[in-house]
Parts: sequence; C-alpha cells; structure tokens
Amino acid sequence: MSFISGKYNRLTPYTPGEQPKDRKYIKLNTNESPYPPSKNAIKNACEAAKDVMLYSDPQCFKLRQALADRYGVDKDCIICGNGSDDILNFAFSAFCDDKTPAVFADITYGFYPVFAEYNRVPYRIIPLNDDFTVTPSDYYNAKGTVFIANPNAPTGIALRRAQIEEIIKRNPDNVVVTDEAYVDFGAESCVPLTKKYKNLLITQTFSKSRSLAGARLGFGIADPALINDLNTVRYSTNPYNVNSMTLAAGIGSLEDQKYTDENCEKIIKTRQITAGSLKKLGFYVTDSCANFLFAKHESLDGEYIYEQLRERGVLVRHFSAPRIKDYNRITVGSKEQMEALISALEEIIGRRI
Amino acid sequence: MSFISGKYNRLTPYTPGEQPKDRKYIKLNTNESPYPPSKNAIKNACEAAKDVMLYSDPQCFKLRQALADRYGVDKDCIICGNGSDDILNFAFSAFCDDKTPAVFADITYGFYPVFAEYNRVPYRIIPLNDDFTVTPSDYYNAKGTVFIANPNAPTGIALRRAQIEEIIKRNPDNVVVTDEAYVDFGAESCVPLTKKYKNLLITQTFSKSRSLAGARLGFGIADPALINDLNTVRYSTNPYNVNSMTLAAGIGSLEDQKYTDENCEKIIKTRQITAGSLKKLGFYVTDSCANFLFAKHESLDGEYIYEQLRERGVLVRHFSAPRIKDYNRITVGSKEQMEALISALEEIIGRRI
Repeated sequence: MSFISGKYNRLTPYTPGEQPKDRKYIKLNTNESPYPPSKNAIKNACEAAKDVMLYSDPQCFKLRQALADRYGVDKDCIICGNGSDDILNFAFSAFCDDKTPAVFADITYGFYPVFAEYNRVPYRIIPLNDDFTVTPSDYYNAKGTVFIANPNAPTGIALRRAQIEEIIKRNPDNVVVTDEAYVDFGAESCVPLTKKYKNLLITQTFSKSRSLAGARLGFGIADPALINDLNTVRYSTNPYNVNSMTLAAGIGSLEDQKYTDENCEKIIKTRQITAGSLKKLGFYVTDSCANFLFAKHESLDGEYIYEQLRERGVLVRHFSAPRIKDYNRITVGSKEQMEALISALEEIIGRRI
Repeated sequence: MSFISGKYNRLTPYTPGEQPKDRKYIKLNTNESPYPPSKNAIKNACEAAKDVMLYSDPQCFKLRQALADRYGVDKDCIICGNGSDDILNFAFSAFCDDKTPAVFADITYGFYPVFAEYNRVPYRIIPLNDDFTVTPSDYYNAKGTVFIANPNAPTGIALRRAQIEEIIKRNPDNVVVTDEAYVDFGAESCVPLTKKYKNLLITQTFSKSRSLAGARLGFGIADPALINDLNTVRYSTNPYNVNSMTLAAGIGSLEDQKYTDENCEKIIKTRQITAGSLKKLGFYVTDSCANFLFAKHESLDGEYIYEQLRERGVLVRHFSAPRIKDYNRITVGSKEQMEALISALEEIIGRRI
C-alpha cells in the first residue's frame, strides 16, 4: 500500500550523479572542484560549529552583506539557499502556475522538468539548435517564466550578456531566471542587469568555483520585490534553510576571493589543454565556458566510453536522452586527473596522442 | 509589480522566533539547548569541512546507519532532512491533497497551517480541550492525514504511546504523523510502533536535545514504503538537502549519547524547579514534557510579561492567538538563566518567592 498522493503520478525524481562506494574513482561526474575549500572557509565553519546549539540566522544577514559587497548590489537584492537548487525550486513554485508555464530548453539542467512536475506547473520545451546553441529570439515573448542555464549544462555553451538582456526586455511581464551555476569559469554574468530589470533573477552557487558543494550554499540576486516573493516561499517551507557552519564558510570564501579566482584560472587553463587532447583523440568538443567538457567521439559510442572509463577507475557523466547519448560530460579536474583521463582514453581508443 | 503566482494569495509565511541584534539577551524564545554540542560532533564537523569540495552523500548512508543502530530500526526506515521542518513539509506535500486534508489541533506547531497553505491542501482543525489536552478519539477516523506534535507545542503536554497507537489503528487508510521534536525531554516515543504500523511517520530533530539547531538536522522513521514516498519528494526538490558537516556532526552526536542523556536530565530537573518557582509567583503552568514551559499569570497580561521581560534582557515567546494570548512559552535554559528569569519576574510582579 502506498500513501503518496495521486497528484505525483507523473513525477520522476531527479537522478544525481552516481556516488559509488565500491572503489576509489577519479570523480569527473558531478562537476565538483578538484581544489579544497579556502582555508578561511574551513576555519570559519569550525568556529561556527561550536555554537550550533543556537539556530542559524534565518535572515543570513552577514552572508548577504558579504555577497552584496562582492557583487555590488544591495543586500535586499539577495536571498540565500540550501544550494542553488533550493532557489530554483522556489522560483518554479513562486513564478509558475497553470497560466504561467515554465519555459526552458530540451537539453539543459535535468532538474528543470522535475521542479516543474513537482510543483505541478506546465512547461514548454524549446529545442536547442543542432549544434546545441540557443537562438535568443526563440525566447522572446515566451508567455511564461524563462529558465536559462548560462553557461548551459551539460553543453557548457554560453550566451552573451547582451543576448540575455534582449530576452529579458522581450519578456517584460514574466520572470527570466538565469542559472549561473558555472558562470565563474568564463561566461558573462548578468548580475549587473538586476539593477535595470525587475523581472530578472540570477541564481549562483558556491558548489563549483568556491569548492563548497558539500556545504550546500546557493543564492539569488534580483530586484528586492522579486527577492521578497522568493522569501514568501522560503518562510513557508524552511526559514532556517542555511545552517550556521555553511553561512560562516560562505563568508570565509568571499573574504578569500583571490583563492577562488586562482582556482578558476587553473580550471580554465586545464579545460583548454584537455579539450585540445580530446580533439587529437578524435572527439568533437563543444565550446565550453564551464568546469566541464561535453565530448562525442568520431567513432566510439558514448555509453561505451563511459563504461570503459568506469572500468579504468574514471567516472564521467553519461545521459541517455537521444540527442546527447553519444556524448559524455567530463568535469575538468586537476592537471593530474586530466592526464589520467587522457591516458585511459588512449587505452580505450587504442592510440596515443 | 509582483510576479508571485496568485495561487499564494492566502499564504502567510511562518514567523520564526525573533533573533534581535540590538543587545545581548537571555534567549528563552526558540527552545534552543543551553548546552553546547557534543565535542565529538564539533570535531566531526570540522573534519568534514576539509572535504566540502565534494557533494554530501545524498543517501546519508552513514548517518542513517547510526540512527538505525540508535533507534533499533532498519536504515531503510529512515530519511534525513534539513531540520525536521524539511520532513514535515515533505509529508504535507506527499500525503495530503484535495481529497486528503491535513488534520491537526488549533493550538499546535504554528508551521502546520503554513505547510498546508503552501502545499495548497485543505486542512481541518480539531480544537484542544479547554485545558489544552487532546482527546484521542477526536482523531479516530479522521479522513485525512493526522499531524500530532507529541509533546505538543507550545503547551508541552504529551499523549501516552497507547493513546497514539489507538489513533493510528483507527486511521488505517491514512498516514498519522507524530512530530516528536521534543520527545527526549520526557514523553513516550512512538518509534517502536513504526514496526507494527505502515501508516505511521515519526519526525524527530537534532535541534533540541542534541544541541544542533544551527546545524539543521532532522529525520523521519517509518515503514520503508512510506520513506520511499518521502524520498520521491526529496529527490524532486533537493537530493543533497543535508550538508556534509551536518551529517558528520549528527554521527558525532549519536556516538556521544551519554552527553545528550545527561543534558536532557539536567533540563528536566531545571524544568521542575522552574515550574515550582513560577507557581509560587502566581503562574498557572501546563504539565510540560518538553524543554519549555507554558505559563499564564493569575493577574498579569501575557503580552505585558513578555514585554517587561524583554526590557530586562530576557526573551520568551508570546503568541497572539486568542486562546493562548495570556501565556508565554519559556525555554528551559541553564540553572543560571532560569534564576535570571525568576529574578526578572519577581521584579515585574513585585514580590519575591
């Protein structure tokens, strides 16, 4: 006997990247950073741990102030969440309904259709072009709440800020959500546009560029009225959504911006080198602005490569959706991890570069 | 211009207890523990902080195993959440719908009606008796999903396990949720009944007895099929809802059970002494099994007492709902904090005990 409401009959939950326990893998499947968190973040989190008998600040006051300073916006333009998934879920809940569908690409963050189904709101899919690029005009007058991952996942391809601005302008009566989880690795952020447009929500995360995936911290930046709408949802589900240790770690990370910038530079450089090696091995690689590469081999099957890499102790992410089943999404790790990846691929493909 | 969906027109978010920053208060308003977390929990959290560049385990495998050992159930009977609010929200979402209203008391955890409104499910209120006790038979054949806080908040009054078992038996086709946030302070837990009844969900928290409010950790115990239903919701909103540092802290706390037990004993003893003092000062005090007291003065107004205590640097929680506006909910803190409370009350009332 199951008690779950029939309203969820169509709901298929999101499948996170596998976290196998059978052996030690080189993990290139969940876009984690190969670099440890800032020492300052760790120190702050440890200090905060001593006081966790007290509730965390539901207003996330100090972290929002630090984010406001970093991004040059007012702290009332910021909301913090238990990962940016938290904020995205709030956005599907707050800004979509029977009359306002969610609008997003066919190939994008796989959680969008799940958020839509969970919140029981309709959604309209706009297919990417054959080369996985977005045609901005496809989103003009979208008659719904637009969700754009920029750079997109799992392709890594980014739109320019001016292109997104045009989408925002052409949807004055609806919210445009720009999911900038991977923006620190080379795309143009739309944060400056939040001062100009009341219908723009940016989401970002500390999981990737700031090496805090396991701490769960995301945030949204928008006009205060829009933040206020999201807080209505937050205070109706879990006002204490961000714990004290994570709030402290986040502040510690922002105080150590140089460390994040250096890590991002290293990852961008490693991405370039790895993309070059992959091309030499016969891969087609999308033009990624993220901390991952999206690659298809000229002759070998995507799933075969995924499985062969797995056998050799290297985990990448393979998706079974028809349009991308020939590809694998490969996190850009450390130089050493990428060398191990290329060696394993040389073995699988049967030639050296 | 507001973009929030009209579906939330009736929604009034939950108001957490105030966290004022204007001065240092003796905080007896949010039922936090006066005792620091277990040293073992702090040590574990600090250790985990070093690895937060990796995602937390979405299966919460080790923590569920530790909880399973502690509570004598299988680990498949356990779900972990970002506070027990997370699990309660999942339960309103999964087990209530247009045909299955939520059913709960008029005087109980103030978040229940908010969860119901947020999830847009109907709810039916069953008033407590005049003395704030529950008549179990009021919940027989409730034709909805029953939510019972046991002990109840803000009254602290508990039902016996046998009384709740009768409610469970008399609702075979619906889920009965027993919210045991405060159970470690003297009430009978219904966890053993989860082996016998497939329609029972217990929620508990690490926030109160385990001094981990700021770490945000709660859990549910139920038959695996019911846990599975809740996981459908969890994996559709935030699979990584519990961060790595908190997972580690939770395990650390469970390894140090003696510390929790000793703290609970101290709080129970302090509660008894404080209740005695309050009665001598002319208060009527409910028979609380929780880490708070619920007290009404024979002549002074509840809000007046709240304000007078606040002026004297002591924060308690006052609710404005008509049936309980003469009362204040007072967290049982340390012996010293309670002495400060009683001194302040002596001053307000104008006599010493």
